[in-house]
Amino acid sequence: MADSSNVNNIRCLCADMVQKANSGHPGAPLGLAPLAYILYTEVLNFDPDDEGWIGRDIFILSNGHACALQYVMNYLIGRLTIDDLRAFRQLGSRTPGHPERGLPGIECTTGPLGQGLANAVGYAISLKKLSSHIGNTCKVYCVFGDGCYQEGIGQESFSLAANLRLDNLVLIYDFNKVTIDGPTSLSMNENVVKRFESLGFVVEVVSGNDMNGMKRALKDITHGMPKVIILETVIGYGSEMEGDCKVHGSPLGVEGVSKLKERLGMPSADFFVSSSLLDKFDELIKKKRAEVIEWNSKSEAINKLCDRVMDVSDEKLMYKSVYVRNDAQKATRKHFSEALCDLKDNSYLIGGSADLQSSVLTRIGSNDFSHANRDGNYINFGIREHSMCGVMNGISSHGYFLPYSGTFLNFISYGFPSVRLACMDNLNLFYVLTHDSIGLGEDGPTHQPIEVLATLRATPGLITMRPCDGLECRASLMICLSRPGPKAVILSRQNVPEIADTSFEKAEKGAYFLVEKDEPDLILLSTGSEILICYEIMKKLSHIRISIVSFFSWELFELQNDDYKRHILKDVPRISIEAMSTFGWTKYADMQIGLDCFGASGKYKNVYEHFGLDCNAICNKIVKFLNK
Amino acid sequence: MADSSNVNNIRCLCADMVQKANSGHPGAPLGLAPLAYILYTEVLNFDPDDEGWIGRDIFILSNGHACALQYVMNYLIGRLTIDDLRAFRQLGSRTPGHPERGLPGIECTTGPLGQGLANAVGYAISLKKLSSHIGNTCKVYCVFGDGCYQEGIGQESFSLAANLRLDNLVLIYDFNKVTIDGPTSLSMNENVVKRFESLGFVVEVVSGNDMNGMKRALKDITHGMPKVIILETVIGYGSEMEGDCKVHGSPLGVEGVSKLKERLGMPSADFFVSSSLLDKFDELIKKKRAEVIEWNSKSEAINKLCDRVMDVSDEKLMYKSVYVRNDAQKATRKHFSEALCDLKDNSYLIGGSADLQSSVLTRIGSNDFSHANRDGNYINFGIREHSMCGVMNGISSHGYFLPYSGTFLNFISYGFPSVRLACMDNLNLFYVLTHDSIGLGEDGPTHQPIEVLATLRATPGLITMRPCDGLECRASLMICLSRPGPKAVILSRQNVPEIADTSFEKAEKGAYFLVEKDEPDLILLSTGSEILICYEIMKKLSHIRISIVSFFSWELFELQNDDYKRHILKDVPRISIEAMSTFGWTKYADMQIGLDCFGASGKYKNVYEHFGLDCNAICNKIVKFLNK
Repeated sequence: MADSSNVNNIRCLCADMVQKANSGHPGAPLGLAPLAYILYTEVLNFDPDDEGWIGRDIFILSNGHACALQYVMNYLIGRLTIDDLRAFRQLGSRTPGHPERGLPGIECTTGPLGQGLANAVGYAISLKKLSSHIGNTCKVYCVFGDGCYQEGIGQESFSLAANLRLDNLVLIYDFNKVTIDGPTSLSMNENVVKRFESLGFVVEVVSGNDMNGMKRALKDITHGMPKVIILETVIGYGSEMEGDCKVHGSPLGVEGVSKLKERLGMPSADFFVSSSLLDKFDELIKKKRAEVIEWNSKSEAINKLCDRVMDVSDEKLMYKSVYVRNDAQKATRKHFSEALCDLKDNSYLIGGSADLQSSVLTRIGSNDFSHANRDGNYINFGIREHSMCGVMNGISSHGYFLPYSGTFLNFISYGFPSVRLACMDNLNLFYVLTHDSIGLGEDGPTHQPIEVLATLRATPGLITMRPCDGLECRASLMICLSRPGPKAVILSRQNVPEIADTSFEKAEKGAYFLVEKDEPDLILLSTGSEILICYEIMKKLSHIRISIVSFFSWELFELQNDDYKRHILKDVPRISIEAMSTFGWTKYADMQIGLDCFGASGKYKNVYEHFGLDCNAICNKIVKFLNK
Repeated sequence: MADSSNVNNIRCLCADMVQKANSGHPGAPLGLAPLAYILYTEVLNFDPDDEGWIGRDIFILSNGHACALQYVMNYLIGRLTIDDLRAFRQLGSRTPGHPERGLPGIECTTGPLGQGLANAVGYAISLKKLSSHIGNTCKVYCVFGDGCYQEGIGQESFSLAANLRLDNLVLIYDFNKVTIDGPTSLSMNENVVKRFESLGFVVEVVSGNDMNGMKRALKDITHGMPKVIILETVIGYGSEMEGDCKVHGSPLGVEGVSKLKERLGMPSADFFVSSSLLDKFDELIKKKRAEVIEWNSKSEAINKLCDRVMDVSDEKLMYKSVYVRNDAQKATRKHFSEALCDLKDNSYLIGGSADLQSSVLTRIGSNDFSHANRDGNYINFGIREHSMCGVMNGISSHGYFLPYSGTFLNFISYGFPSVRLACMDNLNLFYVLTHDSIGLGEDGPTHQPIEVLATLRATPGLITMRPCDGLECRASLMICLSRPGPKAVILSRQNVPEIADTSFEKAEKGAYFLVEKDEPDLILLSTGSEILICYEIMKKLSHIRISIVSFFSWELFELQNDDYKRHILKDVPRISIEAMSTFGWTKYADMQIGLDCFGASGKYKNVYEHFGLDCNAICNKIVKFLNK
């Protein structure tokens, strides 16, 4: 009775928040309030005073638009104030329109649908890997809606979680049978129980108001497989619009809120919080504090653990190059892989690829993460780039391991929505992106990236690097390990020679002279496999004084001071050369040589020639340009 | 006996192609040869002399890397020559590394995994819509592999196809239990039969060498639901590496090919074609010609049909604006929607949205495409942006209808891999992308696009347009209908006033002066909702002679002649203003005002102010810039 009244109080707080903001999503919070109440009061382990407590269970709201509910729960456990709730969706508040990592009680940023599911799988993997060292039994609880379920990333994540037998993962499907446009039957008509069962999930169907049922279902999770609870909720429960799609994303209106409170038997006051509700959570907080003290005292492992928390400045992560140049031609993907292999004993790293190991070469050693080996350092993500990137976000958010993964540069597009969130949250991780241009040759235009690097460069917060040889590959890895935030390393399929002039230290500045002439006639700006062509050009156009810049990383270059930038971008004609879209190069170059159309299938040298990107063709363009 | 020998001949041709190219994928063709043989000789309706024949069944190879097999079949039915097969994967050949639309016998470009499945759903929808007029019974046959199955777009497409009860869709799963990195058990361990059944598919399991079984299964398709045949194949069948993941993507080697031929009882000659195989297909071609003549003569509908083939120059598609300006403030998404509604009787158009109809406003009328209404003009795609975009590609490739769809600009990223293929294939379609900047306000940075428009602009072949008012919205729609290729219209969530100076005709030039001063001190380049701010700036900085350009569409502007470009980009200081990433604007502007970080949740005017994008803040920046 008290519980049901408390739940209704929570519902009314959510409705008040959306109404005060005059913006937001009341539907899901009204339906999910009982679940949130049971989850926080009966199930989740957490430390009211330390949200990063290592013994905590993880809660992720994948349908992030329902965040009014998450904020109310965070208020009740002491992470937010009632004023935070009043400031919902206002600029600078701690309660923005969708949950953002870094704000109190938010494990990861959600809102773009399905992302939270992949994040949850990432947390579950990280917890399993931790457990192989410290025997923790922490769980991940992730609430998701129809959007998360329908999105490809959701289905990819379900399948991956089942294959890895993540029995510490509990998914709760807010199964209200209504999406934004109407009943779910508009867009799906399938047996969701059977679809989960086909993957091997433990499935339980519970009514959205059956608090005993959900308590039991949430606690009964010892079956060796991930579990999903299909929670039959009613969208907008208690409001006059309950069950109607219109209640998904619009405030109830002053009158609607008033009717809601009346129907739920709650006082009409704005942001009313009953003493029953406050008392319940005061008690809970006390209980949790006691539990935390007990857990910490019992857990001898905890001290051992503290030094395992990943820190990018940790010297264990530091990479000291032992590379000795040699004459062998080698693809930069191979160079980078060899550098990675130097780190095979580093227990922070956890890699993977989207079923392209033999091409992207991201496996180090042979220690796959699986249900039988929870301390593996390589995840077989399957052909699921989107989930892969979302899972990396979860692992990185947990903070104990440094995830990286590999796919072809062109196919990072499949996972880009997750890459974007890694950037927004400044997550420590890196992408190994090979087959980086038309230089991949025969696979042709479907596989040859044109616009992709421009996309990555346009994305705030991502450091991209396109090394040209073995030494710059080592520098890339060093930067991946030593700088916070997400990084992308862009690597060739085809072999390239070692460039004698590259520098491990200078690469950190983003751009530097490989060849620096006094009073040059021309500066060539280039990256990766096209650096070689710059040398050929310099040789061929020996009557022109040409300097060559390795423009290794735009973002690192932008961090340099104005003097340094002016030093590189001297006031002489500058020409960029990159075998992909020229988009954006106008920032640095007076003429941009590249490829503003899609590529072609053929031997890679033929393809370069076909698009006028061989030494001869470029020399002609340069001479014409200088004569103008 | 002859059939089995013919199949082995096909296998050897595939192996020869890959070996001669010294590059490619022999594994899947060797396993799938019997299926291809039965499909072409016993099942597919096609016209050997007209690959666009309206009565044809559609064949799509979603696992496009297996294209050696598709090319061999196209050779056998007379669409390619043996020299084409010899030129496999060579520059300029008709047999590139992955199938490319526009080449003989290729319905759509495949290779990026899962895309073909969405294309197949699009073709099936298009055929159903056609059938409501002409009663055709054409089918779509789509072969796919583990990659297509694991990719999110695949699962999205399965679910959508089942919901639409596309019983003209037959999927064939090349179920060889091996992916690039090893056995599928590395990445999945699920009951695929049950997963398809949960969606409502008719499922049949057939052995990969049981030609009678597959013939029966391919023909038995009258159950009111889509069908999937789980074909238990052996990767690399017949070779010494059969069943091994290494045979997926590497030539067998000279010795390997020789062993293959020996094991299959075939002559060792390169590109050998038996008279049995040639005779079989000569007979088939004769039979098909007779069938086509009969079909065409019986089908009175055919003449009726011819004028339904979509042509972007067709006057039925022409859009004549009847718009009268008025004073009401209105979001450009609303303006565009009203323009669309003028076309509600246009039988070419088929729209949809990813469950955001109430926000993107792409539904015209209330004529949903469903199992009960095959002539609908609106598809409920569900929360499946990726499949949505891939389905549009299929509909457009078929050529009878003009597809468009809507989602938030930020979430086109979820479907971008399909957008890219639309660009590569120059498909007629358009994207309605709303909520186009931080101007969407409270939903916050997860929903506010920053880098997305730069991505779209960097993608070859896509025309992007960001109209600023009702009139430019109409111009956008006119361009969507009258220009070939893919288009994206970028629209505001928030209201904007009508700009008195916009022009329907001038918009076609991509950029034009809204305000043109003689000898200006400054030109402001802007788009969409920020045009309004330019007028405010002009008013406030009345002592400066300011011209204003609506830079409506970069790509249309680039099509203009040099005189026109110089006219717009006069040699005076130019400043761009756009409330998103400035990436790329260096091409046109000396200073770029925008947002090179992620946004924030709050009332949209507050958010603009917060990021210094309100009139006052921009005026300060401009004055500072001009004083330098």
